[in-house]
Parts: sequence; C-alpha cells; structure tokens
Amino acid sequence: MASSLRHFAGLGCFSAAASSSASTSFLPGYAPDFCVFVALRPIKPPATAVANPPASPSPLEEEHRQQAAVPWHSDDPPAPSVPAPLRVGIVGFGNFGQFIAGGVQRQGHTVLAASRTDYSAYCAQHGIRFFRSVDALCEEQPDVLLICSSILSTESVVRAIPFHKLRPDTIVADVLSVKEFPRNLLLEVLPPGFGIICTHPMFGPESGKHGWGKLPFVFDKVRVADDGDQAATCDRFLSIFEQEGCRMVEMSCAEHDRYAAGSQFITHTIGRVLSQLNLSSTPINTKGYETLLQLTQNTVSDSFDLYYGLFMYNINATEQLDRLEMAFEKVRQMLSGRLHDFIRKQIVERADPSGKLANGRSSSPAAHHLSTLTEENKTRVSPALTLASPTL
Amino acid sequence: MASSLRHFAGLGCFSAAASSSASTSFLPGYAPDFCVFVALRPIKPPATAVANPPASPSPLEEEHRQQAAVPWHSDDPPAPSVPAPLRVGIVGFGNFGQFIAGGVQRQGHTVLAASRTDYSAYCAQHGIRFFRSVDALCEEQPDVLLICSSILSTESVVRAIPFHKLRPDTIVADVLSVKEFPRNLLLEVLPPGFGIICTHPMFGPESGKHGWGKLPFVFDKVRVADDGDQAATCDRFLSIFEQEGCRMVEMSCAEHDRYAAGSQFITHTIGRVLSQLNLSSTPINTKGYETLLQLTQNTVSDSFDLYYGLFMYNINATEQLDRLEMAFEKVRQMLSGRLHDFIRKQIVERADPSGKLANGRSSSPAAHHLSTLTEENKTRVSPALTLASPTL
Repeated sequence: MASSLRHFAGLGCFSAAASSSASTSFLPGYAPDFCVFVALRPIKPPATAVANPPASPSPLEEEHRQQAAVPWHSDDPPAPSVPAPLRVGIVGFGNFGQFIAGGVQRQGHTVLAASRTDYSAYCAQHGIRFFRSVDALCEEQPDVLLICSSILSTESVVRAIPFHKLRPDTIVADVLSVKEFPRNLLLEVLPPGFGIICTHPMFGPESGKHGWGKLPFVFDKVRVADDGDQAATCDRFLSIFEQEGCRMVEMSCAEHDRYAAGSQFITHTIGRVLSQLNLSSTPINTKGYETLLQLTQNTVSDSFDLYYGLFMYNINATEQLDRLEMAFEKVRQMLSGRLHDFIRKQIVERADPSGKLANGRSSSPAAHHLSTLTEENKTRVSPALTLASPTL
Repeated sequence: MASSLRHFAGLGCFSAAASSSASTSFLPGYAPDFCVFVALRPIKPPATAVANPPASPSPLEEEHRQQAAVPWHSDDPPAPSVPAPLRVGIVGFGNFGQFIAGGVQRQGHTVLAASRTDYSAYCAQHGIRFFRSVDALCEEQPDVLLICSSILSTESVVRAIPFHKLRPDTIVADVLSVKEFPRNLLLEVLPPGFGIICTHPMFGPESGKHGWGKLPFVFDKVRVADDGDQAATCDRFLSIFEQEGCRMVEMSCAEHDRYAAGSQFITHTIGRVLSQLNLSSTPINTKGYETLLQLTQNTVSDSFDLYYGLFMYNINATEQLDRLEMAFEKVRQMLSGRLHDFIRKQIVERADPSGKLANGRSSSPAAHHLSTLTEENKTRVSPALTLASPTL
C-alpha cells in the first residue's frame, strides 16, 4: 500500500489558540476565525537550534506567539508566515519515546515529555522540557499528545490523562505495535472534539539507528476534523515521519492488526520459540542458521511484555498461534508418514527401498527413528507391522 | 573449529599406479616403491585449459603418464615433477555433482561423470567424460570416486559400485548433508584397502554461485592409509576446496551430525513449518519478517527429499524435533499463563491491572483471547473463575 499522505496546501485556517499557550493567549478560550498562510512543509529552524534546542520556548515559537497575539486587519494583504513548531507532548519517555523525540526535534518541533521515571537530566541535555506528571504536561496544552507507553500500561496511562486541561481540539496519537486496541480505547475515553491518529512506526532504536529512511510507518487517521486546524496539525505531525524518509503506509487499524499478526507476531513467536532452545553458534553454521541466530537475539532483546502485548492485544494473534501449531504438526506428520511408507515397503511388499542386500544388515537409521517416534505417532503404526520388520 | 588441513610437504611417496590407468601401467597390479617430488599445491593448467578442458586426457595428464611409465634409476638425482591432475569420478551428476565438478576443474583436475540421467551433452560442453554406467566409469580407475547422489539413493548407489574394477587404494568420498550414515555405509561396504573421506560442503549452487570463499567445508578422513600414496591423494583432493577458499572444518562424522541436527535441521524445519503457513509479503514487513520470508523461500527450493534425508539419516534429528515442539509448547504456556494471571488479578483480588474505571466497560481483549484459547488450555482455567469475571 503506497503512502497516501495528503498535505495541507495553500490557505489553511490557523487559530491563535492552536499555537499559543493559555498563559499567553490574549483571549483565553476564544479562537479567532482568521486565516494565515500555512507552509506545505514545516520549515526547519537552523541546524544549530535543532541540535540543541532550548528547553524554554524557542525564538521561532515566541515570534509566532507574538504574531498570533496581534490582531490582523482584513484589508491588509496576508503576509506569508512561518508556522510555529508543533508542540508535541510525549507521555511515557522510555527508550522508544526518546527515540521518537529525536525525529520530532530533527524536524524542528518542540518536545515536552512526562514519565513515571525521572528523565529530567536526559531532557535537560536534549533541550526537552520534562514534567514530573502528565497533569503538569497537559497544563502546557501541547498540539499533539503522543502516547509512548508500553502496550500493557497504555490503558491506565490514557485513562489517567486530565483531558479537561487540554485544548478541546488536541490530537492524541499512539505508537503501539497493535492498533485496534488503542483505536477503540481512545474512541471510548477521549472527549468528542479530540483528534485521534493511531500510528505504528515499524522500527525502533536498533533498526532505526542509522536513520528512518524507507522504514515503514503505518498510520490511521481515526478521527480528524476537516474544519478548524486539526487536519493541518495532523498532516504536519505525520510529515515529521515522511520528512525523516519513512515509507508512509495508511491503513485501517483492523487491517494493520491482521497483517501484523501474520507477520510481526509470527516472527516474534519464532524468535521466542528458538530462544527456548538456547541455540548457539557452531563451527558449521549455514547462512540460514545464522539468520535464525540473529532473529533470536533481536527478539529476546525486546521485553517479554512486548511479545505478550502483541499476543494479548491483537485479536488475530491466537488464530496465528494455532496455525503455527498446526503447521508444525503437519510437517511432523509428513516426516513420520514418509518413514512409515519406507518401512511398509520393506515389510509388506518385501521390496528394499534402499537397495540393501538381503542379508538383513542395514546402515539405515529407520529403526532408530521409529523407536524414537513420539507416543502419539507410534499409535499410527500397526504393532503387527512394526514387529514383522526383520530389520527393526 | 579452525581448519586443520595438513598438507603434503616435501618428499612424498607417489606410486606409478596412482597416476597411470590400467592400460598404460607397465606393471599392472605392482606399485613400485620409489618416490618423486609432489608439489605442495596442485599446479593449475593455463586458464584456457580450465575454462574448456578437453574431454580426452589432457596434455599434462599424458605427460605425467609417460613420466610414470619410464623407470627411474635410484642413482639419478630426483627431478622436480608436476603431479598429474587428479582424476575424480563423480557418481550422480545432478545439480550438486555439476556444481562440485566446477571447483574440481577450476583447480586443474579431471572430472569423469556417471549418472542415471544422460548428461552427455552437458559434459561435452564442459570438457567432462560422461559414462552411461558406474561400471564404465570404474573401468577408468579414477583416483577419487566422489559420490554425489541424494541421501535417499546413496545406499543403493554405493552397493552397486563394482569395486573390483577400481584400484585397491582408491579413495571414495561423499558430500551428503548427514555424515554418520555414509561413514558407516562405506566402512561396511568398501574393500579394506579403499580410502574413505566423508565431506559436507555446507553450500550449494545458490549460496556458492559467487565463489566458495569462506564457506564451510566439513571433512572427516575416516580411513586413509599413511603408507602408499593414499594420504597424498587425500590431501590433494581436500586442497581443491581449500584452494577455492572454503573454511576447512575437520570434525568427526558423529560431531558433524550433532551440530547439524541442532542447526541445519532446525533451520530447515522452521522453513518447512513456515512454508505451511503460505506466508506472503505484506505492506508492513519488518526486517525480521523479511528474513523469515527469505528463509522459507530458500528452504522450499530444496526438495522435500533432502529435508526428509536430514531427518531420517541423522540420529539426532528426532531429539531436535522434540525439543522444538517442547519449546513451542513452552512459549504457548508462557502466554496463557500471563493471560490467566491477568484475569485472576481482576476477579480474585478485585484489582484492575489495566487501570480501567470500575464501570465494567473494557477495551481489553482478554475476553476474546480467553474465548479462543485451545480446548487444552481452557481446561487449566477453573470454570468458576471464568464465570465470575464481570468483564468476560
């Protein structure tokens, strides 16, 4: 599925409330109905500012606030304007939240962060305002609230958000590896005016450490109002990932979960199963085996909670687990079926499928394999046939 | 395990019988006990000769036969001599036999081939003498008889070889992906004076199409006489693969089969299991999933006979299959165990692990997963507990 990101082009409605905090808005609660030009792409501040963005509001942000605070007279010609950086509030600031924050900042936007763990030192170093609580973060009224909690904690995190402190057109987005669950949760919990974008950046700090180019970014604009500036904010938020080079894939949350259960969950399951075998490198690794060793290592470097989340929070996962189990059983049956054919050929037709001489001596390991078949498989072989074989 | 190929260096015993056919030997059946210099490495004929070696004996081969046929007087100083190319008879000339023949020819040796299928046109094009029967090939008395049949047909192929037509110090080698089986078969069937080298080139026409550099070549000198020229012929044969750049791994056949069951067989099994799922590319492939797609494709491009051979002819394979099944079951139990903990926490301790409000509404898919647990797993949940849950 190709990217179908629509960009905000030409004149867009841009309210003062969308870019000014409650404290600087000269008319709190009132969104004036005037328009400014909105650039097609967010314009990056100079590279130096991106590398070490200040923790306090940036000059660009300040400039925009001042512009928004000065009434614009309809008989003046509209002046081209640099849109304010988006203010993205990240809730849950572990490895993945920090990783995503990097891209947001590289695209010239402002990151605010809140987390149970104290990341104030990390944030000070990276030009990010850190808040001890989601309440304090929400008082800053970010344009986008990006939930970066784990799958397992997301429900409690979302239910604890003080939505009344946010602007009524705030966009809430998530980055979970499952999508129907956060979609339904956000539709249930969020006030009606809030925008909802469900996303899945299908990469992480390891696979994306050399850049996000060509890595898949799945998104579903679950609820984005056409009027007001929600649509523009949505597109500006998504353009962060497009500008970083991601392969943008728009699909419904349900479609994502069907695909992901049959691909990502299967992959994690194979990795988890192999990790139980404690595989190790041998002096005679084939290329295929080295691939599996790498897959196992990558899988167990993720937490079991993630794997459990992929299972528990994707309604298609159980079916895939069942299919995998049936596939394994099918392969086992194919092997034992062939083995039984081999033996029957010897003992019923008196033929020798191996070309062995008729002296009863054999180099064939068939006897060993028959003796080590599982109890379940043994029952499929007639005891009479087994006993009748002179070589077993 | 590093390569431990020992090379024949300095003076080596080199009998006339080793390099002359029965028709040119002036004393058939007698191996004179004189020595000539044997080069450390086989000396390649000019590249043009390698690219299109003649199907009839090469000038180098003829020159050596003439040298060998002239008695050498012990009071003459020994003259440096170019060793004759090895004459390698390949039995079973399918894809893999042809692939190995390429390396033998690149190292300047002569290939004779016999196969059930008529490969005379292919052989004429590639400067290889083709024989309609193994009998006819054996009458040419090659230095090395290389068995390149499939695992399943090897026993009948080996038992049909007319050993009495070969020289009594002929070396027989195999290239199967299992090693204890051909080792025991050859020890059982071959006359006592024959040399036995069991090898496993752990690559094929696909993985080795750009050269054999660094690809593992496993070998076990099962039975090679120290006296006579068998040891030298063995080393010259093995040096074909070393000169091609292979990573030479000397290990016992039993050790090979233990390692291979835990690596190569597991890899093939995973590929076979995944092929049952009919996986296909999705718009949201992760890198790990693409790895599995590739593995599946590589696995099914090999015949099921090969996979069956890896299972049936390696006594360690059943144990590995059992371990894989237990690992799968363990992962399944870990998932259902966590799911049950989650539900018990809700219904026994009356706690809400998801942070959900106490209105009984839930976005959690736990109910779905519990309802889709397999019958086996369902029995582990007390029906009372299941019924007591208000959200299920």
